[in-house]
Amino acid sequence: MTTMTGKPSSATAPAEVPDFDAYPVRYRLTAARAEGRTVAATWDDGLECRYHVFWLRENAPDPETTHPVTREQALQLLDIPGDLTAVAAEVGAAGGLEVRWSSGETSRYHPGWLRAYSLGDEGFARLPERRLWDAGLQESFPRFDGPAVLQDEAAFDRWAEALYITGAAILENLPAAPEVIETVPALLGPLRETNFGKVFDVRSRADATSNAYTAMALPLHTDLATREYKPGLQFLHCLENAAAGGDSLLADGFALAARIAEEDPEAYETLTRLPIAYTNKATDSDYRYESPMFRLGRDGALEEVRWSPWLRAPVKAPVEEVDRLYRGLRRAFALAAEPRFQVRIRLRPGELLGFDNRRLLHGRTGFDPATGSRWLRGCYVEREELESRLRILARRQREREAG
Amino acid sequence: MTTMTGKPSSATAPAEVPDFDAYPVRYRLTAARAEGRTVAATWDDGLECRYHVFWLRENAPDPETTHPVTREQALQLLDIPGDLTAVAAEVGAAGGLEVRWSSGETSRYHPGWLRAYSLGDEGFARLPERRLWDAGLQESFPRFDGPAVLQDEAAFDRWAEALYITGAAILENLPAAPEVIETVPALLGPLRETNFGKVFDVRSRADATSNAYTAMALPLHTDLATREYKPGLQFLHCLENAAAGGDSLLADGFALAARIAEEDPEAYETLTRLPIAYTNKATDSDYRYESPMFRLGRDGALEEVRWSPWLRAPVKAPVEEVDRLYRGLRRAFALAAEPRFQVRIRLRPGELLGFDNRRLLHGRTGFDPATGSRWLRGCYVEREELESRLRILARRQREREAG
Repeated sequence: MTTMTGKPSSATAPAEVPDFDAYPVRYRLTAARAEGRTVAATWDDGLECRYHVFWLRENAPDPETTHPVTREQALQLLDIPGDLTAVAAEVGAAGGLEVRWSSGETSRYHPGWLRAYSLGDEGFARLPERRLWDAGLQESFPRFDGPAVLQDEAAFDRWAEALYITGAAILENLPAAPEVIETVPALLGPLRETNFGKVFDVRSRADATSNAYTAMALPLHTDLATREYKPGLQFLHCLENAAAGGDSLLADGFALAARIAEEDPEAYETLTRLPIAYTNKATDSDYRYESPMFRLGRDGALEEVRWSPWLRAPVKAPVEEVDRLYRGLRRAFALAAEPRFQVRIRLRPGELLGFDNRRLLHGRTGFDPATGSRWLRGCYVEREELESRLRILARRQREREAG
Repeated sequence: MTTMTGKPSSATAPAEVPDFDAYPVRYRLTAARAEGRTVAATWDDGLECRYHVFWLRENAPDPETTHPVTREQALQLLDIPGDLTAVAAEVGAAGGLEVRWSSGETSRYHPGWLRAYSLGDEGFARLPERRLWDAGLQESFPRFDGPAVLQDEAAFDRWAEALYITGAAILENLPAAPEVIETVPALLGPLRETNFGKVFDVRSRADATSNAYTAMALPLHTDLATREYKPGLQFLHCLENAAAGGDSLLADGFALAARIAEEDPEAYETLTRLPIAYTNKATDSDYRYESPMFRLGRDGALEEVRWSPWLRAPVKAPVEEVDRLYRGLRRAFALAAEPRFQVRIRLRPGELLGFDNRRLLHGRTGFDPATGSRWLRGCYVEREELESRLRILARRQREREAG
């Protein structure tokens, strides 16, 4: 092992970290060794890591490398000599990694930070696990007291977690006032404005620009399937709901996808592979996007459900593929229509329903506008805002742990 | 060939189309034949097509199938009998396809519509071709008179086309007034609000929350690499530019990617495959997203460039992969730094620069705030809004052609 000579390190505190996060020290570095283009290190749980010299050098927390105010990289990658090597490495007195470079500088790394970004440690900054559901959720649908959520940060965070984990939650006891939809969801992040406006009114209209603005039953669907980036969170605030009919329906698209994968692998394969074009139908806009119904990520895990019975454009594919697709679609639509996968909610004036529009399907039963008025106001917020909030929540817990 | 009997068709006009688009008849149907689960048709240029019965049935333009006001599907796929067959098919007197179903109805299809959605015809509703560029664009950078664009629809459309084809354009002679950034880009579509606000001010600040808000040189980059859906269009409106330095730099990321693919296929392969995590550095938000620098679509074509030197998180990958990644990144950054790929613009007060943030890189030279003030105001609009506008423009041309 090449130990570092030169500046004494025993007196220095652990180096600061190159961002604003907190990194509790859960494991201790036991050894470090300079290997030229890499630095090898061993942790007390046996994890052995090799770090690339550029990787270490550009993530050093010193103020010339990391801008001290923004904490963003200030050193450009090309400013690092192409032939940089580590000439010495050791575990500092405070438990951090210290590396001396062929270019003369020394960099110091906090052990908690280094471990968090080490290959083989996946515990850092993960989002909660989603809990998939079926009709059994009906009795335990997440409901929170709106005024409490607005006043108390811990209550707010429980609501945010439910929105992520279950993918849906209701705030009760809010005023049945038109401005609620512009203020409450905005506490999570900026509203996403679309061609339907920053806020949209769901009620029956003679000049409907969407099936949503009629009184017809809406089968389960996700919104804005015509956009590359479908809105992540949808909120519907109930102002009036006196008409006969018009109950809200929800189903967990991820749970449906899992069921199809199990019962009909061929249909699932088709629905994860064959792109479907979605187009809006309008006189003054023409949004189009193509995606399989179930989009998988690089790791093969389901990432997004894009499900719109009435915005599908005609598929252009060989007729055998079209046949496969229709078999898959019919299978999926039939499954979604089964009550065992659905939750049915009658929103009361003042209630705010939020749900993940990239995971859940929503719909409504038809209603009769002659029997009373039904008025929901809706808006969208990106799921990234919710995820950011949950990561900050986890960071606060790490800060407490790190002391 | 099974010809259709039953209702006479010779007197009917071509069926209406199931959306609001226009479909000029460029090819004529010469024959049609019912084949049970498919309908075969031949066109006068020799194209032979087979249409699936569900495909035809659910895209019929009659008011029970297509809602006459919204033009969205009103018939649910599951309402079509699973054993539906076409019992007869023929070319109607007006040149459309007419199909009689085993369920008793007859559907009629406009020949222009049918052709547009036929496999083998790819001419419909395509966006213009992008024109990739290098420093040679300096002399012919797209510039338009702002007041003319605001007053004249044809001038507006030329600006919109340049924004798409070149990926950048300047509007000149606008007022150097703070509200311009909120009004002019919004003519394309809703502004996308982010954690930096609906509109952001780019000037040097002591409490900078981003390197952009310092006076330092900004190497070429794309904005908001930490978001799954990076804003598609960025606009920067110049209010003041009296400081020494602070010139704007632009490079065509798609052109750079093509050059790397040609000169260094291994680096290109790495940059299209290996995910890079981007994180924002902040005390109260934590946005993260992972993507290769060059993201390819399903067809292998480049779809998006995600390029941020200073928001990259440490990569978690085997050290050999990390080495490959750094070689690729250094290659890319070095190429982008070459003047032969860059356009350099000194924005004058009143000028509005717009560019495609998913294709172009932008940056600036450092400036000295002591020598004068520099103030740009920025906002984002989604590229889908521009694409929708260009599709409507093409639709208007089709309407003229269809008469």
